[in-house]
Amino acid sequence: MAVLTVDLGERSYPIHVDAGLLKRDELIREFIAGSEVMVVSDETVAPLYLDQLLAVLTGMRVTCQILPCGEDTKNLHTVTQLFDTMLEASCSRSVTVIALGGGVIGDIAGFVAACYHRGVEYLQVPTTLLAQVDSAVGGKTGINHALGKNMIGAFHQPRCVISDIDTLATLESRQVSAGIAEVLKYALIRDARFFAWLSEHMSALLACDRDTLTEAIIACCRIKAELVAADERETGDRALLNLGHTFGHAIETATGYGEWLHGEAVAVGMVLAAEMSQRLGWLGSHEVDQMRELLVRAGLPVDPPPEMTAEDFLRHMTRDKKVCDGRIRLVLLKSIGRAKLVSDYPDSVLHEVLN
Amino acid sequence: MAVLTVDLGERSYPIHVDAGLLKRDELIREFIAGSEVMVVSDETVAPLYLDQLLAVLTGMRVTCQILPCGEDTKNLHTVTQLFDTMLEASCSRSVTVIALGGGVIGDIAGFVAACYHRGVEYLQVPTTLLAQVDSAVGGKTGINHALGKNMIGAFHQPRCVISDIDTLATLESRQVSAGIAEVLKYALIRDARFFAWLSEHMSALLACDRDTLTEAIIACCRIKAELVAADERETGDRALLNLGHTFGHAIETATGYGEWLHGEAVAVGMVLAAEMSQRLGWLGSHEVDQMRELLVRAGLPVDPPPEMTAEDFLRHMTRDKKVCDGRIRLVLLKSIGRAKLVSDYPDSVLHEVLN
Repeated sequence: MAVLTVDLGERSYPIHVDAGLLKRDELIREFIAGSEVMVVSDETVAPLYLDQLLAVLTGMRVTCQILPCGEDTKNLHTVTQLFDTMLEASCSRSVTVIALGGGVIGDIAGFVAACYHRGVEYLQVPTTLLAQVDSAVGGKTGINHALGKNMIGAFHQPRCVISDIDTLATLESRQVSAGIAEVLKYALIRDARFFAWLSEHMSALLACDRDTLTEAIIACCRIKAELVAADERETGDRALLNLGHTFGHAIETATGYGEWLHGEAVAVGMVLAAEMSQRLGWLGSHEVDQMRELLVRAGLPVDPPPEMTAEDFLRHMTRDKKVCDGRIRLVLLKSIGRAKLVSDYPDSVLHEVLN
Repeated sequence: MAVLTVDLGERSYPIHVDAGLLKRDELIREFIAGSEVMVVSDETVAPLYLDQLLAVLTGMRVTCQILPCGEDTKNLHTVTQLFDTMLEASCSRSVTVIALGGGVIGDIAGFVAACYHRGVEYLQVPTTLLAQVDSAVGGKTGINHALGKNMIGAFHQPRCVISDIDTLATLESRQVSAGIAEVLKYALIRDARFFAWLSEHMSALLACDRDTLTEAIIACCRIKAELVAADERETGDRALLNLGHTFGHAIETATGYGEWLHGEAVAVGMVLAAEMSQRLGWLGSHEVDQMRELLVRAGLPVDPPPEMTAEDFLRHMTRDKKVCDGRIRLVLLKSIGRAKLVSDYPDSVLHEVLN
């Protein structure tokens, strides 16, 4: 089993990546301090994996809430329902919340854990590729607002991340592709060799070959753990992990949460960021083509929704969390494998790309 | 001007206590990092002091929201409204939230600051005695739930606390008394000499004598700053600040938020805690009488609402944040000036006191 560590002093925690982890009760129980557990899952994941998790929790006082699937569940209304459930069940401050599902479940459950009784512990048990490589690691929790994605939330680190590779076997191909978008992101911002490796192994990844997946997940988690450890609250280089996200969030918000998967929107966002980087003279057309081609091979979209205008993008991007002194800060690419946070681009370049 | 410090490493911040502070623009502006401000106040305080604050903020991009008064405003619905306002105003991550009002405003605004864009800065500008001596200091933020008080929240420290003594001149006497309840709490848990001083100076306090108030506020803030610095997230001695609060929260929740002022409920809670301490042989009847008498002189209630049964108390107290392994942990008094967190009291003693 691979074990990585997110090194954050007293808030440090391990990321376990392997097959069969959901069945290993001694592993999961090690991270539950008390005897009370609140499991949050969704209507797709619960029928597949909840029983396995409950078997591990035998003897504990367990409360469950199963949420509807999809990004449009990630709102304040759902959070309210979870608080109601936990208070009705008299969950105490020593409860451990377990997020069993994809990124949506992890973000909601983590935020509920951050606020319940001013903060209780939680475990991330991600069951999608996207959550295993990205959202389950790093303590970003939160919910969406009609006016913007992830606008309300907290930095709240989990006690551990338990990524059972077996749970990826039941993923729909669209979800696999969405996860690969975030995998490619790590390569693009940090590791040109990983990009080349992904290009070679794309077919195996899409086929959910277990060893290839494991290798890719560990590579991503290693990069994320390093960036998070250096900059937990995103005042510096952690922002590089948002490559494609400012554009992507605008797509998700504008189209109504849930129509586009997060990874799909990020894929298009990365292409837009690459096109800006090209116009700034940083990327060559060959590199942009290479990127687009690999995203297409991964089954991902590379063009924005046709109905979205430049004004639509700008309206949503202006509310992004990375706006500073009125400027939209963007993660752009100096080359494949090297990203940079940029504020001083000419506005005309952004407008040209969006048109 | 008195300046105390809450010593929390990189999250340290000052508490300024003096007259005329709201008019000192260089003081307030020093703590605002960007040029965006979100002011949260209520319908009583805003007509009195909002203009003074806005005069200080000239030239900044200021958004205001004025909330209805009272504890029943402190809920998720209000928080949602504040998020809506801030997003509609396109407040960025560099916005500074300013809480101008009593404990309710400080708790809500602090929680909104904790969650907006995963955390922005905020200033506490408390305008009630209760907020100046207690709730504005220490970073506890949060809202109520129908099933329990302060059940949802965050530890989020302000950038500073600015307590302008002049704002107390317009307080209703009931609010002054409620604040004195928390003042007496500090004496009871930590400082017998302060208790004696309060007994001597009660008339001056009730008359809002400026020097007496200032001295009392500084004494309270000094104790609170010390306890918070030693135990920011209340895993130890900070819990002593909850003397009377577990009983008090039960009263507030059972009677519907807002009928009892927080300080009034705490006053009764402290009497109940004292009566338990007496039955455990820690306090003499003379000391309990002395306490009751001083609370009565302060214009505070000393008996629970007649309609509340022991079962009502226990039902609400069982959901308290200090419950641990099913036991209601209570702050009791070993003597006047010395408090102790206790779990191993005989249940019969609690039941006798509640009956």
